[in-house]
Amino acid sequence: MNCNVPTDIVFSFTGFAMRGGQTDTHHDGWGIAFFEGAGVRHFVDHEAAVSSPIAELIKRYPIKSKNVIAHIRKATQGVVALENCHPFVRELWGRYWVFAHNGDLKEFHPELDGAYRPVGSTDSERAFCYILQSLCRRFGDRRPERAALRAALGELTREIAAHGTFNMMLSSGGELYAHCSTSLHYLVRQYPFETARLSDEDVSVDFSQVTTPDDRVAIIVTQPLTTNEAWTAFAPGELKLFLDGMPQPEGYA
Amino acid sequence: MNCNVPTDIVFSFTGFAMRGGQTDTHHDGWGIAFFEGAGVRHFVDHEAAVSSPIAELIKRYPIKSKNVIAHIRKATQGVVALENCHPFVRELWGRYWVFAHNGDLKEFHPELDGAYRPVGSTDSERAFCYILQSLCRRFGDRRPERAALRAALGELTREIAAHGTFNMMLSSGGELYAHCSTSLHYLVRQYPFETARLSDEDVSVDFSQVTTPDDRVAIIVTQPLTTNEAWTAFAPGELKLFLDGMPQPEGYA
Repeated sequence: MNCNVPTDIVFSFTGFAMRGGQTDTHHDGWGIAFFEGAGVRHFVDHEAAVSSPIAELIKRYPIKSKNVIAHIRKATQGVVALENCHPFVRELWGRYWVFAHNGDLKEFHPELDGAYRPVGSTDSERAFCYILQSLCRRFGDRRPERAALRAALGELTREIAAHGTFNMMLSSGGELYAHCSTSLHYLVRQYPFETARLSDEDVSVDFSQVTTPDDRVAIIVTQPLTTNEAWTAFAPGELKLFLDGMPQPEGYA
Repeated sequence: MNCNVPTDIVFSFTGFAMRGGQTDTHHDGWGIAFFEGAGVRHFVDHEAAVSSPIAELIKRYPIKSKNVIAHIRKATQGVVALENCHPFVRELWGRYWVFAHNGDLKEFHPELDGAYRPVGSTDSERAFCYILQSLCRRFGDRRPERAALRAALGELTREIAAHGTFNMMLSSGGELYAHCSTSLHYLVRQYPFETARLSDEDVSVDFSQVTTPDDRVAIIVTQPLTTNEAWTAFAPGELKLFLDGMPQPEGYA
């Protein structure tokens, strides 16, 4: 989720968490990270999202954030263990970066120089470490302009996606990058807000009752979360940049 | 807390959290990190621990861990914000390291080379980044033997403590290092277990009912948490290494 004002994710997470063991088979752990200023609230659990007491808290406690990345895991590489749960969090350029991956990378063993090392045993954490190391090598100790960062991430995601399926999300708080390899959809909720109905549970919310006309919220997900809204599919190989609740056109800086 | 078997911290945290705004004035946020294998569950909140819904969850949900570091914050440097809440988590040598600090460092602005940069604005996070950078510079990309690491941390904590008050805890999962500048106490609970009574709330627990004879748990805290147990004060300037629920003698490796 990427928004222009701090927004809670209770509605979307309620549907999403059902896929962690109930309406889908992603039951090998889950996690969610909320940016709050430069800080991050990071929750991970190796239990299935449908039965996790921490997931229950997230559904009841409206944490407001402009950028949230959540993940439910189906173990393809790496055992079911806390250190293998996404999203992963690392620091680069004095900011926390949050990363989650849906997919599977084959024979992906990049040379890691020690600046970022995987703690767990997933292909995903290796990819995250490789991305941060590559950004660090390319741009040194200063964060580049947005256009240069976007271009670099475009190259890196193409390179990594050559090894398999690499649907991923990455954020350091302001912007959110999403790369589609096989399946990613998004939706922008903005004025005039309407009622949305979850696909995975019998829950609806009338967003016009809980928003102001200036609010804008982008939801990006592998499979659409609601039955009555128009979701847009990403093209395979596409990297989108979301800012203030909107996908930003190519060349935006 | 450092233990020889995974143990929940519900009892101690219940008393400790009261000091986050009720029986003491550390109301500017709180946090707790639980190691679980190589993974870490990390909870931070800028709300006072006594009124935080997440602290409430921790009191009710028995997360079992061999190493836990918790902190309640009284802001001395840095605003009340999520990114300034302890404990902090970073990666070194392919393991997560968790750090919390009680105290205040004056004119402590070490040169940081970019490998570890503070995200927030506390003296504490600067000290943590400096420790990790120094370990990295001294030992390169391999974790040294325990004796060498302990000696290096002894030197580093002395150097940092020269800038003010530096009661701190640091762990990468197995061992827990605790440095006392002004106030730190510890206790080892082991067979035969007895009943303990919290100082900050009217709660007792009979540990003989919830333990096995082989369990051993060290609790390290700035001020004793219970009224009827014998706490041992650290000497000022002392760095202790805890492993499997016991402080380890100097020279232990």
